[in-house]
Amino acid sequence: MNQINVPAAKLSAFCVACFEKLGLSRPNARLTAENLIFANLRGVDSHGVIRLKIYVDRLRAGGFKPKARPRVIADKKSSALIDARDGIGQVAATAAMKLAIGKAEKTGVAVVSVRNSNHFGASAFYAMRAVEHGMIGFAATNAGPTMAPTGGREARLGNNAMAVAVPAGRLPPIVLDMATGAVAWGKIFVAQQEKKKIPVTWALDKHGVPTDDPDAAADQGLIQPFGGYKGYGLSLLLDIVTGVLSGSGFSTRVRTLYKQIETPSQVAHTCAALRIEAFMSLAEFNRRMEEIVQLMHSCPGAPGVERIFVPGEIEHETEQRRRAEGIPINPQLRDELRGVGAELGVKAPF
Amino acid sequence: MNQINVPAAKLSAFCVACFEKLGLSRPNARLTAENLIFANLRGVDSHGVIRLKIYVDRLRAGGFKPKARPRVIADKKSSALIDARDGIGQVAATAAMKLAIGKAEKTGVAVVSVRNSNHFGASAFYAMRAVEHGMIGFAATNAGPTMAPTGGREARLGNNAMAVAVPAGRLPPIVLDMATGAVAWGKIFVAQQEKKKIPVTWALDKHGVPTDDPDAAADQGLIQPFGGYKGYGLSLLLDIVTGVLSGSGFSTRVRTLYKQIETPSQVAHTCAALRIEAFMSLAEFNRRMEEIVQLMHSCPGAPGVERIFVPGEIEHETEQRRRAEGIPINPQLRDELRGVGAELGVKAPF
Repeated sequence: MNQINVPAAKLSAFCVACFEKLGLSRPNARLTAENLIFANLRGVDSHGVIRLKIYVDRLRAGGFKPKARPRVIADKKSSALIDARDGIGQVAATAAMKLAIGKAEKTGVAVVSVRNSNHFGASAFYAMRAVEHGMIGFAATNAGPTMAPTGGREARLGNNAMAVAVPAGRLPPIVLDMATGAVAWGKIFVAQQEKKKIPVTWALDKHGVPTDDPDAAADQGLIQPFGGYKGYGLSLLLDIVTGVLSGSGFSTRVRTLYKQIETPSQVAHTCAALRIEAFMSLAEFNRRMEEIVQLMHSCPGAPGVERIFVPGEIEHETEQRRRAEGIPINPQLRDELRGVGAELGVKAPF
Repeated sequence: MNQINVPAAKLSAFCVACFEKLGLSRPNARLTAENLIFANLRGVDSHGVIRLKIYVDRLRAGGFKPKARPRVIADKKSSALIDARDGIGQVAATAAMKLAIGKAEKTGVAVVSVRNSNHFGASAFYAMRAVEHGMIGFAATNAGPTMAPTGGREARLGNNAMAVAVPAGRLPPIVLDMATGAVAWGKIFVAQQEKKKIPVTWALDKHGVPTDDPDAAADQGLIQPFGGYKGYGLSLLLDIVTGVLSGSGFSTRVRTLYKQIETPSQVAHTCAALRIEAFMSLAEFNRRMEEIVQLMHSCPGAPGVERIFVPGEIEHETEQRRRAEGIPINPQLRDELRGVGAELGVKAPF
């Protein structure tokens, strides 16, 4: 059985149907599905429908409350705090970004933080909402602990992530969406299978020592923050501006997605929007953005480099292609999705 | 002649006197000196009085306008844009942070950007102003081009830098102050002298290929962004939220500090402040910050690691020590400062 391509609309409808079976309202089911499909379309398959099964499991076990309505619990001219009440992260973060955009429209900039939330999928999804409004968008989340502070050997920080999206005129927006870990575990597992060494900047062994041996990393080791102590600092800061600031979980108090699935995970998010016309006309900003992108594109390349990309460009091109050709789903994932559908009485679209 | 320690107050008074001779007002001379001494006190000597000579040279040559008054040219409830009018970066950035703090007091959060500015010294200096007001502070700057986008081999981005400062109750504030380059050139020069290899993540050779040979790096090579393409993305984003957003120079349009010293450098800054009490009481936030710092400190260390630090902690301890013992000035720098003083008719404090 080979990989097949499934049209985004069909895959989305399948996810919506699954979520509705579990008690989500139609709009919230659509929103959550849209976020997963968004990730697949952009080639970020780690945040796509591969997460459907755990979302379904958590909705059934009680870790995600399907009917929770986010509530605004602090509200200033340019800031707000939302309690997600243990609901779906996508629902609360979308509400937060919408609120931030509305406030930034009036004041120039706004920040909205979210407590008591859960996994929210791809960060870029929220940051990019601001772009449609002529704004720069920012979204960040914390996550269950998987990394050590520099010098340490126990997990104290999540692979906390952030995204920033900036309109760029006639060009696709610049979208930087990055986790603070050096690498995804998946790449270490691949190196294990292929019996290859890994860069010493990827992982620690169980004693906290950087290792190039994927087996040593996989044996109770940890992922390293990217870029050494700077990545550690960024990860800690993201935890502060999400978890500490919002009154949610932080550091070891956040639960990871795949464990204790009956328990809400205490994840926090922070979204922000900055209105460009508070600084200059959007037309002028767009011209300037086209120019800076052009300056990157026109940079002479190192040997073997055919193109210089800006952040989000590869994802944009993948999205164009996958919108036309469908989303590739491998046999293993197909079986998993079919199983999820069968449990809920929803027919898979393949 | 050995290294000597000079009391901060004496070194500062010397810088103030030099700046006043060049036409700065007393308050602006003090502010600029304070920024340089701040860096020395915190052990960031690369941004301390080692910069006095180039500042003096630029003030004399016309690259810094000593009497420029920053002007607010756009003003919203939570945002503003300042034209530094080619003055000293420290003066404009301090005005920007002050304005951001005042606005955040009323609305929860504020962002102020600065165009037509110059080198502003250590970013942490501005971010930390917010901490005294119970706020999280952010300051960023762009810089003349010294790094290539990932895959490139020509300078298109500065070693753009940012700082974030967060109050932490009875503990010193968390202060992450980082440039987006993997390393300072100084470390590559040291490796050259010592005939040692450098990590391949530090620099590119003149063809744009990562190299472990410091001689190849120094021969028309470039510093790499830290952490690979993520560091490139962050550097580009900092250029966008400073240079592009403010209407100032960006990418190749920013001039480096040491070249074309008669020409203003078109540097841009962006400062932001977030009022913690818009989210929760400062007392509660402080307790939570003490707890997250404790979670980092208590992390078991890798072999040979005695302490786990949080960002800004080493600098804080250096500051305590240097406030008591003075700022170490090596013979070469002493000669240089003496020379600067002699030209201006100001007696050096050693």
